[in-house]
Amino acid sequence: MAQAKRVVLVSRPVGEPKASDFRIEEFAPPSPGAGEVLLRTIWLSLDPYMRGRMSDAPSYAAPVPVGGVMEGGTVSEVIASENPGFAKGDIVLSRAGWQTHAISDGKGLAKIDPKLAPVSTAVGVLGMPGMTAYTGLLEIGKPQAGETVVVAAASGAVGSAVGQIAKIKGARAVGIAGGKDKCDYVRNELGFDDCLDHRDPALAAKLKDACPKGIDVYFENVGGAVFEAVFPLLNAFARVPVCGLIAQYNDTETKAPKWAGAMMRNVLTKRLTIRGFIVSDFAARQGDFLRDMSQWIREGKVKYREFVTEGLDNAPGAFMGLLKGANFGKQLVRVGPDKA
Amino acid sequence: MAQAKRVVLVSRPVGEPKASDFRIEEFAPPSPGAGEVLLRTIWLSLDPYMRGRMSDAPSYAAPVPVGGVMEGGTVSEVIASENPGFAKGDIVLSRAGWQTHAISDGKGLAKIDPKLAPVSTAVGVLGMPGMTAYTGLLEIGKPQAGETVVVAAASGAVGSAVGQIAKIKGARAVGIAGGKDKCDYVRNELGFDDCLDHRDPALAAKLKDACPKGIDVYFENVGGAVFEAVFPLLNAFARVPVCGLIAQYNDTETKAPKWAGAMMRNVLTKRLTIRGFIVSDFAARQGDFLRDMSQWIREGKVKYREFVTEGLDNAPGAFMGLLKGANFGKQLVRVGPDKA
Repeated sequence: MAQAKRVVLVSRPVGEPKASDFRIEEFAPPSPGAGEVLLRTIWLSLDPYMRGRMSDAPSYAAPVPVGGVMEGGTVSEVIASENPGFAKGDIVLSRAGWQTHAISDGKGLAKIDPKLAPVSTAVGVLGMPGMTAYTGLLEIGKPQAGETVVVAAASGAVGSAVGQIAKIKGARAVGIAGGKDKCDYVRNELGFDDCLDHRDPALAAKLKDACPKGIDVYFENVGGAVFEAVFPLLNAFARVPVCGLIAQYNDTETKAPKWAGAMMRNVLTKRLTIRGFIVSDFAARQGDFLRDMSQWIREGKVKYREFVTEGLDNAPGAFMGLLKGANFGKQLVRVGPDKA
Repeated sequence: MAQAKRVVLVSRPVGEPKASDFRIEEFAPPSPGAGEVLLRTIWLSLDPYMRGRMSDAPSYAAPVPVGGVMEGGTVSEVIASENPGFAKGDIVLSRAGWQTHAISDGKGLAKIDPKLAPVSTAVGVLGMPGMTAYTGLLEIGKPQAGETVVVAAASGAVGSAVGQIAKIKGARAVGIAGGKDKCDYVRNELGFDDCLDHRDPALAAKLKDACPKGIDVYFENVGGAVFEAVFPLLNAFARVPVCGLIAQYNDTETKAPKWAGAMMRNVLTKRLTIRGFIVSDFAARQGDFLRDMSQWIREGKVKYREFVTEGLDNAPGAFMGLLKGANFGKQLVRVGPDKA
């Protein structure tokens, strides 16, 4: 068998990750022991949360150790099995990380049926990002018909699903994205009511125009300047599910937002709800999510777009790009072919 | 009939309210028209939210107009009635405001049965402050047995009920109050597990010691330095119901708290819930509140303390004191005798 490859974290990035924070290593593909399977990675999912794993600041999950393989969700093929629960050729959702091959004891693996949907969707619209959108919007945001929902990174894996689900629920969906092409796509393909460019110096004024009845739900996945523009427009009883702060992940110091002094006063006088979550907090909703989202995709109510980088060697560069919005759609790395 | 009196807002306070922001006026007691009643005030409730009504900053309620009578909840006696729903001698909960007499069309009046409890409790432990504690703690805070609940202004009308209800629910209750006497009362009479003095320069360190398992619920009614001390101790999935910010009400500019830059990151990584509310948001729970709280008082599980200022003329001074914690227990103004 050819050599396997993995991407190792060499140093904890200060500010933006750079190529020298990663090292690509070759290693001999291991053999599965009793009860284990050998996985070959087909798709590696790159997601903003990974920036947090590179840092040892306190968070909801332990960091990747320096010298360790970068963590990540994958779509993998079982190429050797000593576990009766899995057969050679099975396609599984795994957390094999940034590597071409991995050993698993089978725990946490979920079989994927390639007949139901392209297998890459298991780490996208039918996977963690889609379920983040679904649970955060419906369990915390609770959009009502006629309300206004705002989401940033609106052409991305999470944001695109948030806005489309908001439309399904009868709400007005306003997206924020980087550049004209993404905004056109969000409006014309995804069917958001409007989409604004976060690079526009007049963002705050344009957002106000785009939300004539204020904002009832702000799905927070970016932080920074977008929240600055959103905050004064929040209506009484607005809900702010918080699942990410990508605009701040590379910050070496956390600047207080402009409204920081007024934040708690606004929470009180507007009776805001601000609530952080991660997708696993709502694991019990997975069945509902898969049922609803599959149906919405079949009905054409939810569309998705994938942005594919070829080859594991290019994963660090793709991740650096993801943090700057260089991707257009769900960021994937094609690590290996669909069938070996 | 003797002259009636009322307290009028003369100017919007800048910073701390001062005596010259109020004027005491005499007026001829009005006569009730068809469908109306004439009320005589027995008890006027003074509550921190009134500071907001003196300001024209955006809030959940319209401000008292300059030249208008200060708003407030009262326990009043019907002394003349042209409304078939009310008889002379009825004791009612009203929003008659800072005055000795008022006309009402009967809307919003609730009869009080003097046999059930001292009538003053209708604006205290069995009224708005008690229900603020009950609904905010149980609907948003949701303390579980073994969790830690922290509340400031712990000897006050709201805080004292919050801690005692937390104890009933099996949680650890830690209060924060101003000075040794109040802290002793909170610990020894109200049965909190601990109580700290907010004037203690070592508050943050002592709070950490008093909450060895961190803080699961912080019932926010003061803001300022207390929240600074609480924030780093919040556990994953902590809940922060926000019903008041008394420490900041007199601020002429809102300073960003120390943790402002890290606030949203903590909301995310700790999955915090921060939610503002006012008691009327949970009006549907009033029946449950009255049933539970009456029972807890009868059983001795909830105690309360009243702090009485004599005479309407002293209401402005009492209110200025309330904002500085000069009261020790629920602040009331005795405007007239129980029975005329």
